[in-house]
Amino acid sequence: MLTNDELAKWDRENFMHPSTHLAQFARGEAPQRIVTGGEGCHITDRDGNRLLDGFAGLYCVNVGYGRKQIADAIAKQAHELAYYHAYAGHGSEASITLAKMVMDRAPAGMARVYFGLGGSDANETNVKLVWYYNNILNRPQKKKIISRWRGYHGSGLVTGSLTGLELFHKKFDLPLAQVIHTEAPYYFRRPDAAMSEADFTAHCVERLEALIEAEGADTIAAFIGEPILGTGGIVPPPAGYWEAIQKVLARHDILLIADEVVTGFGRLGTMFGSDHYGMKPDLITCAKGLTSAYAPLSATIVGERMWTVLEQGTDENGVLGHGWTYSAHPIGAAAGIANLELIDELGLVGNAGRVGAYLNRRMAEAVGAHAHVGEVRGEGMLCAVELVADREARRFFDASEGKGAKVVAAMLKRGVIARAMPQGDILGFAPPLCLTEAEADRIVAVTAEALAEVLG
Amino acid sequence: MLTNDELAKWDRENFMHPSTHLAQFARGEAPQRIVTGGEGCHITDRDGNRLLDGFAGLYCVNVGYGRKQIADAIAKQAHELAYYHAYAGHGSEASITLAKMVMDRAPAGMARVYFGLGGSDANETNVKLVWYYNNILNRPQKKKIISRWRGYHGSGLVTGSLTGLELFHKKFDLPLAQVIHTEAPYYFRRPDAAMSEADFTAHCVERLEALIEAEGADTIAAFIGEPILGTGGIVPPPAGYWEAIQKVLARHDILLIADEVVTGFGRLGTMFGSDHYGMKPDLITCAKGLTSAYAPLSATIVGERMWTVLEQGTDENGVLGHGWTYSAHPIGAAAGIANLELIDELGLVGNAGRVGAYLNRRMAEAVGAHAHVGEVRGEGMLCAVELVADREARRFFDASEGKGAKVVAAMLKRGVIARAMPQGDILGFAPPLCLTEAEADRIVAVTAEALAEVLG
Repeated sequence: MLTNDELAKWDRENFMHPSTHLAQFARGEAPQRIVTGGEGCHITDRDGNRLLDGFAGLYCVNVGYGRKQIADAIAKQAHELAYYHAYAGHGSEASITLAKMVMDRAPAGMARVYFGLGGSDANETNVKLVWYYNNILNRPQKKKIISRWRGYHGSGLVTGSLTGLELFHKKFDLPLAQVIHTEAPYYFRRPDAAMSEADFTAHCVERLEALIEAEGADTIAAFIGEPILGTGGIVPPPAGYWEAIQKVLARHDILLIADEVVTGFGRLGTMFGSDHYGMKPDLITCAKGLTSAYAPLSATIVGERMWTVLEQGTDENGVLGHGWTYSAHPIGAAAGIANLELIDELGLVGNAGRVGAYLNRRMAEAVGAHAHVGEVRGEGMLCAVELVADREARRFFDASEGKGAKVVAAMLKRGVIARAMPQGDILGFAPPLCLTEAEADRIVAVTAEALAEVLG
Repeated sequence: MLTNDELAKWDRENFMHPSTHLAQFARGEAPQRIVTGGEGCHITDRDGNRLLDGFAGLYCVNVGYGRKQIADAIAKQAHELAYYHAYAGHGSEASITLAKMVMDRAPAGMARVYFGLGGSDANETNVKLVWYYNNILNRPQKKKIISRWRGYHGSGLVTGSLTGLELFHKKFDLPLAQVIHTEAPYYFRRPDAAMSEADFTAHCVERLEALIEAEGADTIAAFIGEPILGTGGIVPPPAGYWEAIQKVLARHDILLIADEVVTGFGRLGTMFGSDHYGMKPDLITCAKGLTSAYAPLSATIVGERMWTVLEQGTDENGVLGHGWTYSAHPIGAAAGIANLELIDELGLVGNAGRVGAYLNRRMAEAVGAHAHVGEVRGEGMLCAVELVADREARRFFDASEGKGAKVVAAMLKRGVIARAMPQGDILGFAPPLCLTEAEADRIVAVTAEALAEVLG
């Protein structure tokens, strides 16, 4: 460990952090934490704090911290061949092996995998492939992408447009015109409290149909959705949602992109969220769980119906002009192989389902009846506690009160990391998939204490 | 090393490679190479070939292959802390240290560094910051970005729009409307052979002025350019170009983005290309040379005038809604630190200038008089040989003849990797910065032999 006393100062003076209040951070008013290590579900920082990470980094450290097996694989690859590109048919033993492993685990009907770096660039690839696909099929007008309000699909210009959250649009001139949004499948925030889940699903379908009608199906290329809304509030879909939505898409020949950056590789207790909800996507976006974040790597899994057209496209037009210098980076590939092996060896997909259900049940028991808890919801190793000003009236707190952030801060004081989701007062939990019941108990207990401290 | 005989088959059946003819690759008609190791300027493949890499991967392995010092740093970081996010003021010792090291090396007038993953996402960040900047300054109409034909700035939707090459636009509906292109600073392809370099610079300025006038300066936010055109053909600017262009930009209050993905950290024999050409950018894009590709990492260096406004923006609007899960990834940061240390220790910036000049001189001597060589050009450790059908008439080969690709294939047979640049018949050279004179001699000799074989 460095003992350099200037590190904190260097940080404030040189480093532009993502998703940070830049001015407050520069002035020393916003918090700073220098993380130095981790093991299992815990991280340690330079000040000697040991924290239970209830959000697995940014729901990405699925196997937990400090896994020697993955670090060893990275080290071995770094010494053998840190890098060579994957353009024009080049590859490494690691990238090819991982491609095979991903395809072995993918839902039925998938044909190939392309490797990028993070979820945002994988969705960028997806939009490019969708546009290319409809150009090859001579449907140049069929290009718009439908996303959902509260979806999260990245932070770039097009991918931030796919994202349906104000924080990522405001002052950035997003969304761009090629992206349109439909109703969030967010039953708790349904327009009419009297609606059943089935009613609400029918409402979502109706809104989607109306949007397609208004825009013209011949202008709409694809629909993108996370199996379960993530950053938008950790919201499982209402009953029957994906079955009903897919019928609409099929009727209008609209491709389905399943954004499985959060759900891919086990988080819902199944290898993919598409399996969990019976989705039959044309493209699957993967990142986070693919390497458990030990090295940057994303994947776009391409379904058979698209792949056939992509092949036709290169026969007609030559080389596909798409690639990142670091596509299929050997270090990421080596991390991915070791990570997927570890998930199997430790039975983490099963553990995510089992302990995730335990976490959700215990959370509901502990805080579900709190006067300011509107809903406890989740699926697999995802859980959310949504705060409300008034339970009966489903009235929300004013955003300026920052109630969610205050509860999360009160939890942090007690050594547990949760995430205040960016839109609404929602406590988010997405621990490593290796969470134990004892650790789940601690998360729940600290949530209850913090809620009591902040909201009585 | 794996001895799995199925690897080649797995590759064809599962792996979608970047920038590849997908159908030919799947059918086994396009070449495949599985790279297993490397040392200095050479790589080795699974079939036992040892190749002199005259393009340093994709002009990114600046320190050369097999550097134990960087591999050790990656291994150490992977074992200590492979990942924690950098959101909301979080960091690692590696990411903060690298931020300081980058700022210590950056041109004058820069304020902060943001870390992403690759060049494309760094330019995505740049466009977001430029738009945010003008929104904070209440200039909502000042948003278009001017790029140059033959510029290369990425392969995403917006970044591929910045790129001014047909391969990256065709069938992808690019460029998007927010990006407009001006004249490539490509003296060899000047419209009138009688123009001097100064005339041609004046012509580029005139074209830029005319574009700004036609669009309205109040609609134009930024101008992006590589100090020396890279993928567009490895073309140094004509004399006086950057000085003249910057005067125009200043007059119209247009920001300058220097895309130094290729030139950053030494390739031109100076730490940055901006230093080399007297550019005073508001944003600098870095990737490749930042880690020599040992791990994915990019950087956006933000100049003082922009930083002040970004701080104001967060004081007015709160947290800046931009970030990648893998921003400032600790593995990339550790690789970056070791890489920048190694560049200093081995004196690679100086070597790039010295041996690069040698390579360019020897190349010109060896092939400059060939009947089908129109120009040998370069700067630092970058060199290009442009092929022509007719020297005197500056008549080019038809693209369908693939002359450049044939020469590169003939070089590969002889054990030397060059790159057939994607637009025009241009042989590109961008070896590791540790190239020796003997290795430069071999590149030159093989180029001459291959030229003779293919073009007589």
